[in-house]
Amino acid sequence: MRLALNQKVAILLHGGIQSRLGKTGLSLLRYSEAPLVAVIDIECAGKNLTELTGIQRDVPIVASVADALQFQPQVLVIGIAPKGGMIPDDYWHELKDALKAGMSIVNGLHTPLANIPELKTLLKPGQVIWDVRKEPSNLGIAQALARTLPCRRVLTVGTDMSVGKMSTSLELHWACRLRGWRSKFLATGQTGLMLEGDGVPLDAVRVDYAAGAVEGVVMRYGKNYDILHIEGQGSLLHPGSTATLPLIRGSQPTQMILVHRAGQTEVIEGVPIPPFNRSH
Amino acid sequence: MRLALNQKVAILLHGGIQSRLGKTGLSLLRYSEAPLVAVIDIECAGKNLTELTGIQRDVPIVASVADALQFQPQVLVIGIAPKGGMIPDDYWHELKDALKAGMSIVNGLHTPLANIPELKTLLKPGQVIWDVRKEPSNLGIAQALARTLPCRRVLTVGTDMSVGKMSTSLELHWACRLRGWRSKFLATGQTGLMLEGDGVPLDAVRVDYAAGAVEGVVMRYGKNYDILHIEGQGSLLHPGSTATLPLIRGSQPTQMILVHRAGQTEVIEGVPIPPFNRSH
Repeated sequence: MRLALNQKVAILLHGGIQSRLGKTGLSLLRYSEAPLVAVIDIECAGKNLTELTGIQRDVPIVASVADALQFQPQVLVIGIAPKGGMIPDDYWHELKDALKAGMSIVNGLHTPLANIPELKTLLKPGQVIWDVRKEPSNLGIAQALARTLPCRRVLTVGTDMSVGKMSTSLELHWACRLRGWRSKFLATGQTGLMLEGDGVPLDAVRVDYAAGAVEGVVMRYGKNYDILHIEGQGSLLHPGSTATLPLIRGSQPTQMILVHRAGQTEVIEGVPIPPFNRSH
Repeated sequence: MRLALNQKVAILLHGGIQSRLGKTGLSLLRYSEAPLVAVIDIECAGKNLTELTGIQRDVPIVASVADALQFQPQVLVIGIAPKGGMIPDDYWHELKDALKAGMSIVNGLHTPLANIPELKTLLKPGQVIWDVRKEPSNLGIAQALARTLPCRRVLTVGTDMSVGKMSTSLELHWACRLRGWRSKFLATGQTGLMLEGDGVPLDAVRVDYAAGAVEGVVMRYGKNYDILHIEGQGSLLHPGSTATLPLIRGSQPTQMILVHRAGQTEVIEGVPIPPFNRSH
């Protein structure tokens, strides 16, 4: 599944336009080819998106799902990614309003919505709830199979989370396509999956199967492409991050690109980012 | 929850006594303080457990759950751990026989049993199904909090899986207790959880929360003990393994103990174990 290119999309982004919470929504505004007709953020309603964010895209900001209906959206994407991945309490009535108005919902948070009875009963034929962050089925244990592939496998890694690993992979993918290479972007997070559809929501996979899930998707595409751009997840240094290891083991990268926020010196208080000029 | 010390236990171990599959059952035979009254393995029925395994424990081996009933077991523990963690097809009728005979079931595999209607309907008051490998609730993102604890945190790591990390941690824990130290064993796998009850089934935790789940259990006990023995999981070298990283980040170990199978030189074909005598 991915965002259908012929469906009008509204992005639910309360509190997200001007904070780091809004990463998913802002990335869709920056990169999605789908027709985005409204951004919903009560804090910024009526203001100009480009002035607020620098993103060159003309989309109105409104205060609620109800206010967005004038633009006839067919899909509501939840655009925030709060720590821990739960749906904020004040988002629920918006989700119900959207379903009542006939919209489908795309949800990238850890709270699965598709099986919540209160939401399910509101679905009419043609309406769907897509929980993007769902562990795939048919998982196995990785065996370093990706090293046998002839293609390049370029993995982005980061000194911290939210530093632009996905954007780097996407930009390189498009640059490769412009040069006529058979390039594929493999998503490993919810936003990448919404944009490109192929990949694995690594954060939602159980530890036992994490490297195997990455290996599975890499093996599925590696034979038919010259270069795979594998979206990084997590951080090399953050004490809460686990994703980089199964990404390395599952994809057996031929190249890694380190993404860093210029000027940042620690990931959390007391956990410094080592200087880059130190030689070992 | 842990195995109750006053309940008679039978171990379902078809094909497991003489293969690596039987790790969980054999560890219980070696370490559990619970009264073990029968081992069920059709391949070895009637033979002598000590002669087959070297384990100094006098437990009869029988061919089926039905044959075990003469020893009046109250709990059936699934003692195998096949790759991928699924229940083998020929185990299902044994599980149903056990429930019909009034036994509870302890299941450490990835297939959750407690919500399977066919099994659920067989439960009478007092009977339970304990799915050990269930992700805990209230998970968060790790913040390296464990480094603030005053206690020692000893983590076992391994060159490969199934090399004795749990056994090493358990033996060290008991040695510490003999010396009068306030020592705690923190389980991170299904067998350890069955034996000791406290810990986290790390393999079943989603990547996003893995380090946080470890941190949570370490913080829960770290203030009241001199030394925590944290059971290792997975492998430093196996391309399918992810668990070591969140264990290190979540527990912030003060000591690590490398467990290695003497003489083993590669983890899978083409993935060598580096020599230990090389200096860097």
